[in-house]
Amino acid sequence: MKLATFLPPGASTAVAGEVRGDEVIAFAGGESVADRLASEDRSPATGTAYPLVEVTLQAPVPAPRCIFGIGLNYAAHAAETGGEVPEAPIVFMKLPSSVVAPGGPIVCPPVVRRLDYEGELGVVIGAGGRIGGYTVGNDVSARDLQRREKQWTRAKGFDTSCPYGPWITTADEVPDPENLRLRTWVNGELRQDTSTSDLIFGPQTLVDFIAETCTLVPGDLILTGTPSGVGAAMDPRVFLQSGDVIRIEIESLGSIEHAVA
Amino acid sequence: MKLATFLPPGASTAVAGEVRGDEVIAFAGGESVADRLASEDRSPATGTAYPLVEVTLQAPVPAPRCIFGIGLNYAAHAAETGGEVPEAPIVFMKLPSSVVAPGGPIVCPPVVRRLDYEGELGVVIGAGGRIGGYTVGNDVSARDLQRREKQWTRAKGFDTSCPYGPWITTADEVPDPENLRLRTWVNGELRQDTSTSDLIFGPQTLVDFIAETCTLVPGDLILTGTPSGVGAAMDPRVFLQSGDVIRIEIESLGSIEHAVA
Repeated sequence: MKLATFLPPGASTAVAGEVRGDEVIAFAGGESVADRLASEDRSPATGTAYPLVEVTLQAPVPAPRCIFGIGLNYAAHAAETGGEVPEAPIVFMKLPSSVVAPGGPIVCPPVVRRLDYEGELGVVIGAGGRIGGYTVGNDVSARDLQRREKQWTRAKGFDTSCPYGPWITTADEVPDPENLRLRTWVNGELRQDTSTSDLIFGPQTLVDFIAETCTLVPGDLILTGTPSGVGAAMDPRVFLQSGDVIRIEIESLGSIEHAVA
Repeated sequence: MKLATFLPPGASTAVAGEVRGDEVIAFAGGESVADRLASEDRSPATGTAYPLVEVTLQAPVPAPRCIFGIGLNYAAHAAETGGEVPEAPIVFMKLPSSVVAPGGPIVCPPVVRRLDYEGELGVVIGAGGRIGGYTVGNDVSARDLQRREKQWTRAKGFDTSCPYGPWITTADEVPDPENLRLRTWVNGELRQDTSTSDLIFGPQTLVDFIAETCTLVPGDLILTGTPSGVGAAMDPRVFLQSGDVIRIEIESLGSIEHAVA
């Protein structure tokens, strides 16, 4: 089941529903995506159906309670940054207000000079701390702040630093989350192209690691880390600029595309 | 005005109110502490009055949207940890579920072996991103995880790692937040005794720094960093154990006291 949050045509209030083919069908009971993650209810949506092209997708859970990011979780990315492969997951946090719709826009804070993308597999928590589904995310990063500031709250958690979506594909429809092709383009140029099979710490390992100290709740999002190919590792380095368009696609999970304002 | 959340005698549902002398008076309109921070309404509470000794205080905002912590924000503490005085604030995050009532208890995760206290001045955000008030917090820290893991999410954000309270004193009643005596005792032994005048980065500087990239909302909490005197810096080092009782007092803001389970 593909869980989405969207604005129906002409509406200003978001509703949740299920994506089936080229349509999205609202949940008749008014449930949110977080409600469906918590209930594990997989019964089909029976409300109004809209053509997908006519709605405006929002982030599936518009303000997750917690968003965790994972640093250096692909060996090739650890290498390109000059970092070592970590012995344990590096867990940082973004803010609920980091979230922006899968269509963006990313707004670069005035204090940031080196804006970069990170295409990532997102893991969404369901009931009982179990993995509820998967999604596509951009762990937008301010490389200048990340370099200067030891803890990454500002570098990784600024407003609009977390476009994700286009929906959440429930875990039952993703038999092998560690074998999905992940690609990122900037202005049509392919920058990242890897498989989630290259993850150092896989989804369940990450969930278990965080849950050793922190109780996870439905809708919590874990961005599992980015593969090689970020702008900061290009030669010469290339950072995002106003008007740049980032597209991230993960096999079976869909794609998100957004611009830098 | 002192904003509190509490369980009335025999009740299982928390209500919010105002502390006046040795009483706490419920808000007649059913507002929460976060509502009062957002509205800046300082009109006196007019609901039921209870003797303070008969209620059970909860964390004033039971689950803040965001809790920020600041690392090494007193020169003497930076020195005792072997760290340098930072050029800019070190901003990390705790989780909404880090919060526990001012009376605790702190529950040490099984994976943690070196549990430590950090008595701190807490800054609470009010309307429009302005400082709404001040409180007393314990930035409970897992020194083993903090040492091993570069990002401090698990070390600082585990469940029950943020007892705070006993209430929020609104900013209008705290004319000089950078001149308050802060003391921490463990089992009656004085461990920390300093003035907030020793803060490297004061409350408004911290708010401005975070707000450069992140929009702050009412109820957000910033723990401003701990002075010297933590257990990890004692010779020999002493960590918290089951049954230990921590008491933290800040002049004009009250005191909190809680045990390790």
